Amino acid sequence: MQLLKDRILRDGQLFPGNILKVDSFLNHQVDVDLLCEIGKEFRRIYSDCEINKILTIEASGIGIACIAAQFFSCPVVFAKKSKSINISNDFYQSDVKSYTHGNINHVIVSKDFIGSGDKVLVIDDFLAHGCALRGLVDIITGAGAELVGCGIVIEKGFQHGGDELREKGIRVESLAIVESMNPKTGEIIFR
Amino acid sequence: MQLLKDRILRDGQLFPGNILKVDSFLNHQVDVDLLCEIGKEFRRIYSDCEINKILTIEASGIGIACIAAQFFSCPVVFAKKSKSINISNDFYQSDVKSYTHGNINHVIVSKDFIGSGDKVLVIDDFLAHGCALRGLVDIITGAGAELVGCGIVIEKGFQHGGDELREKGIRVESLAIVESMNPKTGEIIFR
Repeated sequence: MQLLKDRILRDGQLFPGNILKVDSFLNHQVDVDLLCEIGKEFRRIYSDCEINKILTIEASGIGIACIAAQFFSCPVVFAKKSKSINISNDFYQSDVKSYTHGNINHVIVSKDFIGSGDKVLVIDDFLAHGCALRGLVDIITGAGAELVGCGIVIEKGFQHGGDELREKGIRVESLAIVESMNPKTGEIIFR
Repeated sequence: MQLLKDRILRDGQLFPGNILKVDSFLNHQVDVDLLCEIGKEFRRIYSDCEINKILTIEASGIGIACIAAQFFSCPVVFAKKSKSINISNDFYQSDVKSYTHGNINHVIVSKDFIGSGDKVLVIDDFLAHGCALRGLVDIITGAGAELVGCGIVIEKGFQHGGDELREKGIRVESLAIVESMNPKTGEIIFR
């Protein structure tokens, strides 16, 4: 998606440790007009898939998912992160390791809001090692719902989470895939 | 807002401890059509205020703020919750006590995204004791920005956070104010 790539090149900031900061338009301050174009693009890509639910994970996926859901005319469910293991039988649960923070989050979705018969699109802002996405995929599978595919705004291709998911036969559509980036020169190369 | 009150009466669930669960349409599963009507209503209420930024707090405020921002044609900034005190000078910070979880969150907003000249509308899903809202107000004041007002989806009137803010001269507009609720009978009375 050229509009997005241009924006990353213009406003993205690189830092050591493979950090690409896009918090001026995506995950701290949010450019809602850009989100609208992103939502339309996800809709175009998944136009013939009869998606009836969008699943994302708190926090920064929520805005993207809600704006996109307007174009799918379907509800959003956002998975919640919990420090403690949820012993209730009312939730689907998956453990998600965070490379950024070095901890494990227990990710939960109420059984009331996902189940067999659901055709689910997963939306998230970033895909790097793929831990969060695998957690959401586990929850969808555990619920007996159908995973139609994933819509990612920015994929860090060099961290291979996306490729691993694709090798498993999961449809992963990323609007911008960063193949390499160099914090010294500021250079970002897209796949 | 009658549409919202009707929805709360239909789908809200009451539990002991003053808990009103609306997670089937507002803060776990999200009815984006309803959010759209909520966004239009905030716009109607604050139509002549030249708002140029919407501030909310992760997680469940984000979807509401992003949908509403479409009607204000302005960006959203969402404050982040942090377990640790942020020692960086790059952030405005405020401490927010959570009555629900019994802990203190350090709430931060980058200095890049709020400052003097900004006319800010605060949007959040719930207002009870008002701790989160006071934190956001502190950040706006600390940034030298102008707080135009607050737009709240559901205010628990009997917990008085809203009234305390109004007594300080802050404009707080809540689309539904629950005056009392009874988990035994399921009765909800709006102000």
